[in-house]
Amino acid sequence: MDVQSFSDILDHQVRAVDSRLCVGLDLDANRVSSGGSTSFENLRDFGRMVIDATLKFAAAFKLNFAFFERHGSAGFRWLEDILSQIDGRRLTIGDGKWGDISNSAEHYASAIFDKFGFDAATVNPYMGRDAIIPFLERSEKGAFVLCLTSNDSASDLQYQKVGNARLYGRVVSLTRELNVNNNCGLVVGATREAELGYVRERAGNMPFLIPGVGAQGGNLEASVRIGNRGGVALISVSRSILYAGDQSEEAIRKAAKEYSHRINASLEHGNSPSGS
Amino acid sequence: MDVQSFSDILDHQVRAVDSRLCVGLDLDANRVSSGGSTSFENLRDFGRMVIDATLKFAAAFKLNFAFFERHGSAGFRWLEDILSQIDGRRLTIGDGKWGDISNSAEHYASAIFDKFGFDAATVNPYMGRDAIIPFLERSEKGAFVLCLTSNDSASDLQYQKVGNARLYGRVVSLTRELNVNNNCGLVVGATREAELGYVRERAGNMPFLIPGVGAQGGNLEASVRIGNRGGVALISVSRSILYAGDQSEEAIRKAAKEYSHRINASLEHGNSPSGS
Repeated sequence: MDVQSFSDILDHQVRAVDSRLCVGLDLDANRVSSGGSTSFENLRDFGRMVIDATLKFAAAFKLNFAFFERHGSAGFRWLEDILSQIDGRRLTIGDGKWGDISNSAEHYASAIFDKFGFDAATVNPYMGRDAIIPFLERSEKGAFVLCLTSNDSASDLQYQKVGNARLYGRVVSLTRELNVNNNCGLVVGATREAELGYVRERAGNMPFLIPGVGAQGGNLEASVRIGNRGGVALISVSRSILYAGDQSEEAIRKAAKEYSHRINASLEHGNSPSGS
Repeated sequence: MDVQSFSDILDHQVRAVDSRLCVGLDLDANRVSSGGSTSFENLRDFGRMVIDATLKFAAAFKLNFAFFERHGSAGFRWLEDILSQIDGRRLTIGDGKWGDISNSAEHYASAIFDKFGFDAATVNPYMGRDAIIPFLERSEKGAFVLCLTSNDSASDLQYQKVGNARLYGRVVSLTRELNVNNNCGLVVGATREAELGYVRERAGNMPFLIPGVGAQGGNLEASVRIGNRGGVALISVSRSILYAGDQSEEAIRKAAKEYSHRINASLEHGNSPSGS
């Protein structure tokens, strides 16, 4: 049997778990109240608990490298431990927004996919296709290309008019062009609904990774409905799950369950899921 | 006395060492021939030797995170060891091309400047000023913003026409606007001379970091001459020094010395150095 593409693997995972929720493990000692301690060990315990509490409801986990790099080499040992704990039971996305070329890009891809063992990575398109292609060589590993983000200063570059499109439109076409192995996706922010529709229309069935839901204020229902038109959209939620209620395992599990269900309900009220 | 800005510190370092050479520590086990072993320990030994051999001729060392991340958490312990070895004797640039926003960007800045202790970082402008500002809060720490790179696919985004400029021109204006603490710089590739002149004209006295000289084929003399018009340009050389000759300490020292001297000679033949 041929190796499945990342897009197929993602489709399968979403169906198997019946969830489009991606839990963002933005583990921040300053936000964790449990135990009353901000120690690194306490944070590691908290992280283990979050994964146990949310695994059932998550299609994927996203590890933003900032929260690990923050702790130096000890942070990367922690990242390795977390990946061991997840142990392939869910998809893992390395969120480092890597954007380098040539042997640097190859080393990053090797680090993320081989050394750490992530299923997918987020990559930055500023240096063009040379920065993306090294992440696409194996069809079972995916790359989500940073396309349109929800921060105010997205206007500085992404919204600049280039010909008769915006820069982020160019990124959509470029990524689609590179999607020969069916393993490209796009990172599209949750707070720009009109633009989300524009991107989905032009992206074909490429999967989306939509961060910024919950604490960052993105509209969940519209993002789910629009993002899933014709392709899978993973909805990444971090703080609203990690720091839910009293931060007990029960509160975190409940938040993950509710997000997962709200996402599915938004789908049912909108269009039908893709790829059926 | 006021805290010096990164730009002042860089000026001072360049004068003190009489060098604009930045040694890029792209340490790759597959390229190291010494000892006939590609083991990680051999690579670490080789790295220590390279720093000893080149320190006298280098104004700065650039550590591209790809070459460390490649080795997982052990790679980051190695990165920490290298910074301990350099021990503030030369400027250190963390080359991770970070490009995230909000608390992620703050965590990265904290990791790079506080935890690892770098003097400067390279950052990616795709998400706009929100991705740059967190790196600029302390005037003594610098950020080199990725502007114009020397790879073929720079045309995909950087060369796109935006109004009556190119996208990289927008990045120059944006970075200059953010340079209120005198700690911004630009990454400008060495293989595009006409564009290098364009960027220097519009960048005021912001420092440049120019990679791509040597193995990557950039023209050293023109890059030095144009890059240093009105501001300091650090010339980053990696493979042509690290893997010079028989890779002995002597061969590496000689290569570093020659690059440092060639850079200075190019300056003397061209315009006078800045800020005198």
